[in-house]
Amino acid sequence: METAFERNQLRAQRPIGVFDSGVGGLTVSRQIAARLPHESIYYFGDTLRCPYGPRSLAEVKAFARQISSWLVKQEVKLLVIACNSATAAGLETVQRLFDVPVLGVIEPGARAAVQATVSRRVGVIGTIATIESGAYTKAIRDLDAGITVFSSATPRFVEMVEQGLRLDRNPLEDIMAQTSSLYIRPAFQEIARDYLNPLKRCNIDTLVLGCTHYPLLTPLISSIMGPDIQIISSAEETALEVASTLARKGQLAAPDAQPVLRFATTAEDTEEFARLGSAILARPVGDPLHVSIAELEQGLGKKERAC
Amino acid sequence: METAFERNQLRAQRPIGVFDSGVGGLTVSRQIAARLPHESIYYFGDTLRCPYGPRSLAEVKAFARQISSWLVKQEVKLLVIACNSATAAGLETVQRLFDVPVLGVIEPGARAAVQATVSRRVGVIGTIATIESGAYTKAIRDLDAGITVFSSATPRFVEMVEQGLRLDRNPLEDIMAQTSSLYIRPAFQEIARDYLNPLKRCNIDTLVLGCTHYPLLTPLISSIMGPDIQIISSAEETALEVASTLARKGQLAAPDAQPVLRFATTAEDTEEFARLGSAILARPVGDPLHVSIAELEQGLGKKERAC
Repeated sequence: METAFERNQLRAQRPIGVFDSGVGGLTVSRQIAARLPHESIYYFGDTLRCPYGPRSLAEVKAFARQISSWLVKQEVKLLVIACNSATAAGLETVQRLFDVPVLGVIEPGARAAVQATVSRRVGVIGTIATIESGAYTKAIRDLDAGITVFSSATPRFVEMVEQGLRLDRNPLEDIMAQTSSLYIRPAFQEIARDYLNPLKRCNIDTLVLGCTHYPLLTPLISSIMGPDIQIISSAEETALEVASTLARKGQLAAPDAQPVLRFATTAEDTEEFARLGSAILARPVGDPLHVSIAELEQGLGKKERAC
Repeated sequence: METAFERNQLRAQRPIGVFDSGVGGLTVSRQIAARLPHESIYYFGDTLRCPYGPRSLAEVKAFARQISSWLVKQEVKLLVIACNSATAAGLETVQRLFDVPVLGVIEPGARAAVQATVSRRVGVIGTIATIESGAYTKAIRDLDAGITVFSSATPRFVEMVEQGLRLDRNPLEDIMAQTSSLYIRPAFQEIARDYLNPLKRCNIDTLVLGCTHYPLLTPLISSIMGPDIQIISSAEETALEVASTLARKGQLAAPDAQPVLRFATTAEDTEEFARLGSAILARPVGDPLHVSIAELEQGLGKKERAC
């Protein structure tokens, strides 16, 4: 019979599962790959049902459950909900249902902001659904009840990123590296100023990017907020959390492991998914598997935890 | 006018404030000093009113508030409530009242356990007050709703540590290093087995030491739990949290800073406090300042945050 140690060693070789409503969560995968270069990652983008922002909590919770179930069947060792709306709606449910640990993107970003702020005045931007859920305010104030949180929905930032992504360019050109040329556009700058100036006037010293699309706008957001305001990327903080969780569990991939990056999507146009995805991940998103909504809906329940 | 950066540099030179109902919280100071050797620490032990465990939440909250107010007047840059009962009762209130960040010992231990567990079955031991507050169960399940928590009050462990501390010995002999000789006693082993065997039978793989006294019993507890169960010391985890919080705020002491360790206590017998304290800290607790309860009670409110 294998020992607990051997079982853990076997589990360490499995991929990390990451999912989002579309390609935005690839900012999280990118940070995980940068920090943990030996880890395999299985990424699922629910592009057909994107965006999750305007949907009801119950609906997003059901989607999170379906995709988690699908990824658990691919034998992932850890699940990351790389989407703020899905974290707010479904994290707790998914944690209860499955036997693998599940991390969301809200707590790591909230925690980093609590550690970073000196004035204890923190700003949060995100989609309407994320901001209205109040999940960041709660997570921040659970850690430090003395912090004042100023949160603001900035939905047009998602459109801006998507417009930027759809521009015709070499898909492997790194979109992060060239955002300066893209986001210098006056129309984008004006939108950003309208969103961010009120937050600046609240004298925050820390701003959380509460949407997985937003790290792609860091140059634009930083230029408006100025050098004295720390920008917290929940993508980066979540990758740190993945790293310390796997390290503590003794489940990091071996240093000689050959990482495999795999992709699945509900998008009809998997080529478009691969093109956009490659620009965010800054490496090829090769040959994504198409998964239909029917498959996701049918798949529910088989490997779920009895509870 | 000084800039925000300069203000932060000045603040970095201030001590970290740490307090507990007695000398137990010195296990936390010890870990902070080990991890951050350039930091000055001002430790307050409320020995006269020790233990906090059997007191009401409202009373412990008031004590936490008084001592925090006293330490804030000593211009500490960060406060650590190095006592599980006082964290459960007073953390939120103290965070709201003062302008410095305040860390408790519960969240860091809970978080480490969530990261470490593979079976997602976690045990917690602590005083009756801490266990009955449910604070660990809540903190753990807030991070991972799929974890099953088994908690058990083990109050006699505190007595065992205090008996051990009161044995006549060279105060600077490190009590941690010689616990094996002390805790090999059959009576102590029997108590520990009675407490811990039921938790072992719950098939936990991680055990949180939810009392600042308990790290002094690690050899005994580990010998009973066996090598497959990870022991989480909230003292160690809190020190890690202090380190990352100060680093993120840019408030770590300069590498050439000469650390000063100061001590204050409500104990009438400050020599006894120094003797016990030195054994836990493994360095001299020299000349503790005596602070009367009247001083603590009078001092309230002057530097508190307007809110």
